[in-house]
Amino acid sequence: MSIMHVVVNAAMSADGKLSSRRREQITISGEADFARVDRLRAASDAVVVGVGTVLADDPHLTVKDDSLTAARRERGESAHPARVVIDSRGRTPLDAAIVDDAATTYVCLSERAPVDKRMDLADRAELVTAGETRVDLQRAFAAIQQAGLEQIMVEGGGELIFSLFEVGLVDELRVFVGPTVIGGRDAPTLADGNGFVSNFPTLSLESVERLGEGVLLTWNAQ
Amino acid sequence: MSIMHVVVNAAMSADGKLSSRRREQITISGEADFARVDRLRAASDAVVVGVGTVLADDPHLTVKDDSLTAARRERGESAHPARVVIDSRGRTPLDAAIVDDAATTYVCLSERAPVDKRMDLADRAELVTAGETRVDLQRAFAAIQQAGLEQIMVEGGGELIFSLFEVGLVDELRVFVGPTVIGGRDAPTLADGNGFVSNFPTLSLESVERLGEGVLLTWNAQ
Repeated sequence: MSIMHVVVNAAMSADGKLSSRRREQITISGEADFARVDRLRAASDAVVVGVGTVLADDPHLTVKDDSLTAARRERGESAHPARVVIDSRGRTPLDAAIVDDAATTYVCLSERAPVDKRMDLADRAELVTAGETRVDLQRAFAAIQQAGLEQIMVEGGGELIFSLFEVGLVDELRVFVGPTVIGGRDAPTLADGNGFVSNFPTLSLESVERLGEGVLLTWNAQ
Repeated sequence: MSIMHVVVNAAMSADGKLSSRRREQITISGEADFARVDRLRAASDAVVVGVGTVLADDPHLTVKDDSLTAARRERGESAHPARVVIDSRGRTPLDAAIVDDAATTYVCLSERAPVDKRMDLADRAELVTAGETRVDLQRAFAAIQQAGLEQIMVEGGGELIFSLFEVGLVDELRVFVGPTVIGGRDAPTLADGNGFVSNFPTLSLESVERLGEGVLLTWNAQ
């Protein structure tokens, strides 16, 4: 039986923010971390983001380094990992980079997603419906696994990352901590959502590595 | 001429939180970090917190290890560093641990602090008034320095830490990152306030050290 492995990867400021309160993308890491993220993508079967990240940043989520895509092809894989959007209400824009034809895309919807959005998105992505008003992450990830996707990389945002910790789907957390302070009680953080008030998930520190101007922390979920 | 040195010290979860959205104190670090914090206090002339931290946690901020207080006395210093509360409106409770007689306490107020609060607090602390409606941190810290306090340790919370970065008063940031996830878009973070949207303060990573179950990051402000 196959085992899914979920790695959450993010870059945060020294004070734990993913971006400013305006939700503008801020360069937190540098070239060394970009290259690491690209290698991690290339080693993944699927890259997952929440729709908030799609709306804020319009990421493409493809592998940038041609030698990495070539190596994937040599292994008999697609050039790029599949892309997955967690999108309860079907808000992924039809012209979003993540639903272009560079790679297969799965859009995971709840039953609340309107039929017209669903029909439009079906032309560009594989649709997975799981959950009534919000995506049921356990069921959505089980569906992804059934499609043969086992090495999963999650690239944010903070709402999705919190929800994944909440349902116990995170195996590993890799955080690049960058040399800047963003601040802001309303700025997005690595794990937003309602937050825990008890039974906080416990991690164990797998490795610590200086990388560029910051540090990469790799934690295992317990 | 004397030079003030300001070290901000904090423990945050792997996702950058100081506590849960309920503002309850959560054990993020362990014995090794407690001992480090105690040594840093003992090496400081003053330990500074915001009134929010006083109201939430009622910290004493004294040095816990008797050999450290003994060493301070041998150097001709007081047993404990002075304690400083940044308290624009005079909300420090009269029975707060921070205004007991274990050490000298400075309460920094704005002109908005009511006269009756001011008179009550004057029995228990040295009062510094700086700023009209909020404490003018530059002036308050200058007054502290004039009182002979040069090695300054700031122990939070996130509102004060952000304000100190805003006015450029931080020389060094020491963050213990602990093996837990707290989450929550409303949970206090290392740097709250309004947040930066441009001209983000840049840090340089001085050192990285595994400590107990987490990691201590020491950043220099630039």
